[in-house]
Amino acid sequence: MALGEFDLIRKYFTRPTQAARTAVLGIGDDCALLQPTPGLQWAVSCDMLVEGRHFLATVPPERLGHKALAVNLSDLAACGAKPVAFTLALALPRVDEAFLAGFARGMFALADAQHIELVGGDTTAGPLNLCITVFGEVPPGQALRRDGARAGDALWVSHAIGGGIGDARLALEVFRGQVGLGADDFEAVRRAMEWPQPRVALGLGLRGLASAAIDLSDGLVGDLGHVLRRSGVGASIQVDTLPLSPVLARQSRALQLECALAGGDDYELLFSAPPSAEAGVLAAAAAAGVAVRRIGRIEAAAGLRLLDAAGAELALAVQGFDHFSG
Amino acid sequence: MALGEFDLIRKYFTRPTQAARTAVLGIGDDCALLQPTPGLQWAVSCDMLVEGRHFLATVPPERLGHKALAVNLSDLAACGAKPVAFTLALALPRVDEAFLAGFARGMFALADAQHIELVGGDTTAGPLNLCITVFGEVPPGQALRRDGARAGDALWVSHAIGGGIGDARLALEVFRGQVGLGADDFEAVRRAMEWPQPRVALGLGLRGLASAAIDLSDGLVGDLGHVLRRSGVGASIQVDTLPLSPVLARQSRALQLECALAGGDDYELLFSAPPSAEAGVLAAAAAAGVAVRRIGRIEAAAGLRLLDAAGAELALAVQGFDHFSG
Repeated sequence: MALGEFDLIRKYFTRPTQAARTAVLGIGDDCALLQPTPGLQWAVSCDMLVEGRHFLATVPPERLGHKALAVNLSDLAACGAKPVAFTLALALPRVDEAFLAGFARGMFALADAQHIELVGGDTTAGPLNLCITVFGEVPPGQALRRDGARAGDALWVSHAIGGGIGDARLALEVFRGQVGLGADDFEAVRRAMEWPQPRVALGLGLRGLASAAIDLSDGLVGDLGHVLRRSGVGASIQVDTLPLSPVLARQSRALQLECALAGGDDYELLFSAPPSAEAGVLAAAAAAGVAVRRIGRIEAAAGLRLLDAAGAELALAVQGFDHFSG
Repeated sequence: MALGEFDLIRKYFTRPTQAARTAVLGIGDDCALLQPTPGLQWAVSCDMLVEGRHFLATVPPERLGHKALAVNLSDLAACGAKPVAFTLALALPRVDEAFLAGFARGMFALADAQHIELVGGDTTAGPLNLCITVFGEVPPGQALRRDGARAGDALWVSHAIGGGIGDARLALEVFRGQVGLGADDFEAVRRAMEWPQPRVALGLGLRGLASAAIDLSDGLVGDLGHVLRRSGVGASIQVDTLPLSPVLARQSRALQLECALAGGDDYELLFSAPPSAEAGVLAAAAAAGVAVRRIGRIEAAAGLRLLDAAGAELALAVQGFDHFSG
């Protein structure tokens, strides 16, 4: 007999000893009850992941569990919010215990690392679909927003030490059969795609330093566009300063630019900060254990200009990834 | 050209003038920011709806938009929490503007009636899937829980004035071709299935009166089982006291009991309260504009006993609906 829904919830998503105990009342009632920290605001974000759109059927369940939570934590990071708790809704075509065990292992490993708790959710039969909603806390007025970029600010992007942006897109191109890579190179970029690291510590460190921030989920150009529109400014990017991993740096220049500028799935922070904040930004990154790179600047003139090393404008057609038209 | 994801979000889910303005920062940033009311706890619940499981392809989009939010608000009602805000994640096979317009209309009509705000979410391409997470507030210690039922308490169920429980299941049996109904009767029970009314006002009114509460989503027997297990008690139900609509009351006794006891999708409140609270319960229901019916009592002996009018125990095999084994 197949495991029923309630047994399934108990077996994989109820934890005998809570690694973090933030909820007054957790899984098993109609609602979870949480006690907000007095004076703080709540940051809420929600991402839905669909097979074939946000992950491939080839992803190991453990990495998928990690990624489903990571992409949500990345939104909290982009707001400078401290993660507190999350809910998980899961539609599964069938009860697949190997999948559930791996998924739960990957998800809870990241939850434990961030000291946050699964406080509720839903499971149902249906085409594979993962929906996580995360909650974080931030002092009033200190959240990093998209609308605060000002002309003259420097434009920064985070990246793994020794890594860069665009690797997830490069991995996708390999899966699509458009690019060939050696086994080690493929594993490196596949890991970037399947095991993104939310920049939570950096987001917290950028409070009071960054004038605007967003996380890179749909590609640098598209995501930067949101910041520019909401802030009423433009920007220029020095494309030769884009941080690239050794693997991507060995690809053609056209592929480098496509992956780094329009890649998607990077889950790095793109942020602006006044020039006076540079030392603070570098210190925040060092404290968070990640690298940051200054890649351009915010300008008063609307639009985005991509510049080569000589300062000449490149004519590139890059678009933000769009889940319906992309 | 098809509407892109961002245009779609703007067109249907951004409202020019917010009917309720609870969010410090709403849709359009990485996170929504909410300011909790000092001293209150947050109640959080999350439900995912999948076509063919939780609704049929025949449901009018406006009713689906209503129902997706209603089933989540029902969880807040069962906790006695006051709704504040919600997020929506939506996977759609294609951009269908007629569907989106109707869905948004039904969802926002209920949101406006409850004075709550859509504060964020996600849209993506994929098999139709709706995931809503709701947030409410409740004073510490006043949430209605599942674990507070005590032997001697009366067992109550809410229902629409002039209606009852089990109609949604009866409608499902008609859709399945198992039962035939006249057009008016079918529309009445179909409305119960597609347009459930979350008992938010009743849930608030039951604070301090009910010893335990749950909302009826999977069927009375199954949902009551959660309360009994968590409270460490048993119960008896006088089946002849179950509130039935005129339509269900005209069906066979076997179908009546199947629909009322194991129906699912009722979204009424099932709650226990000490006998001394009876006048208060009736007053709370009257103030909320709904009916309540005393259907049995909580007992020390474990298990559930179904009794006929003479007090004899019925031998019925009814199970709670389970999304995987049901």
